[in-house]
Amino acid sequence: MTQIHDALLDVAQQMADAARAAILPHFRNSALTAENKLDGGYDPVTIADRAAEEAMRAVLADLRPDDSILGEEFGTVDGTSGLTWVLDPIDGTRGFVSGTPTWGVLIAVGGPDGPEIGIIDQPYIGERFIGTPQAAWLHGPQGQAPLQTRAARPLAQATVFTTFPEVGTPADAAAFADVASRARLTRYGMDCYAYALVAAGQVDLVIEAGLNAYDIQAPIALIQAAGGIVTDWQGGPAHNGGRVLAAANADIHAEALAILAKHA
Amino acid sequence: MTQIHDALLDVAQQMADAARAAILPHFRNSALTAENKLDGGYDPVTIADRAAEEAMRAVLADLRPDDSILGEEFGTVDGTSGLTWVLDPIDGTRGFVSGTPTWGVLIAVGGPDGPEIGIIDQPYIGERFIGTPQAAWLHGPQGQAPLQTRAARPLAQATVFTTFPEVGTPADAAAFADVASRARLTRYGMDCYAYALVAAGQVDLVIEAGLNAYDIQAPIALIQAAGGIVTDWQGGPAHNGGRVLAAANADIHAEALAILAKHA
Repeated sequence: MTQIHDALLDVAQQMADAARAAILPHFRNSALTAENKLDGGYDPVTIADRAAEEAMRAVLADLRPDDSILGEEFGTVDGTSGLTWVLDPIDGTRGFVSGTPTWGVLIAVGGPDGPEIGIIDQPYIGERFIGTPQAAWLHGPQGQAPLQTRAARPLAQATVFTTFPEVGTPADAAAFADVASRARLTRYGMDCYAYALVAAGQVDLVIEAGLNAYDIQAPIALIQAAGGIVTDWQGGPAHNGGRVLAAANADIHAEALAILAKHA
Repeated sequence: MTQIHDALLDVAQQMADAARAAILPHFRNSALTAENKLDGGYDPVTIADRAAEEAMRAVLADLRPDDSILGEEFGTVDGTSGLTWVLDPIDGTRGFVSGTPTWGVLIAVGGPDGPEIGIIDQPYIGERFIGTPQAAWLHGPQGQAPLQTRAARPLAQATVFTTFPEVGTPADAAAFADVASRARLTRYGMDCYAYALVAAGQVDLVIEAGLNAYDIQAPIALIQAAGGIVTDWQGGPAHNGGRVLAAANADIHAEALAILAKHA
């Protein structure tokens, strides 16, 4: 199993490198424009999203032609190997088009029970958060280090993240607010970077709703490898998206889940 | 004037370098703890805040002993030169203790009418945003480039930032929401980095309330140097803090100010 995981991780790293090269020329480029994918709202997509997903798919076509693919921008490809790559070329495109440095490239691979390897890559900072069944690392300006979620502490001393204050539906927002109001610190706006901070031992909880599979599979693999837990708001699997609770440890997961369950 | 500004900018850069060296060993360090400065809330301060302000004050004691100082952590020093250095060693300590990369070191120098030179430095990414009366630059992984705020566009196509959804008082929040509801995109959580993004041409508006002088003087000098406008919510000077409207250009400033004025 280790050799198989190492080989898949090597492919994932090549995909992340290819996505970086495709995206960075467009970041904060004054010629960048965004199309809106959403009627009655604003869900931008840019040439960088598409170029990065195409670059990652080209790596897979070359190295893993028999695997399935689910990507945000170009949909599904059915393979024969039993493995599926789940790709979000830019998670946080709203942040990307605003120039913030907390969007990321999400790459996961696994089977029907969820991801086994996941990467959150932040090309502008040069950080890569890697989760495999064995361990997790941080590559960045400061070098390389293992990642470990933080030890248990009460919710009253915890830090909670979500990307948008509205979270999802009004009911989702009420449930989030019920947890956040009991936490010491609530922060917004980090997109996938918040999940990387759970893996890095900086944050206790990320709570979101309305996610797609490609938003959450890489964070699941990363956080689990670093010692954390990711479920839906009933404690079930989260790899198909929806309402997600990512926690640094079992204690804070249980404390948050008990509150969210009252809003089910 | 140019030689004087160049000399002061050189001092400011030395201060920013000293602050970086003082802060980075503590960032994401598992031994970092935070004290709470606020009764009935959470306003953390860390050893990194204090060490960075001490390091900057040491540079001033050596190179500019006759200037006044106003710093967040160690208060005021009265000088004789007519110049005041306004320092926030870590703007966004809540983000700092959460591991996010969008806090910053704020350094401004000027007279009673406000700052003439300002720096927003992000040590972890390695970005420095510099505003002088002549120009503004970005130093970072991508090298060095002039900064220019973005051209005018209607509020309906604009991007608006604030750090906390509650903004300030409930009245402040209502005024912000009135502007944000007419904008295309609203984002949260960036602390001083949002002002740097106005200077960098990525964001149209930052609207905040309850600021101190040391929160806003560096952003004022930076944004003005890049072509933008920073005022309070009545269009008056903002360098003493309070309610702040930072805008990329005169048109979007006027459009936002007209809405905020209805909430005065």
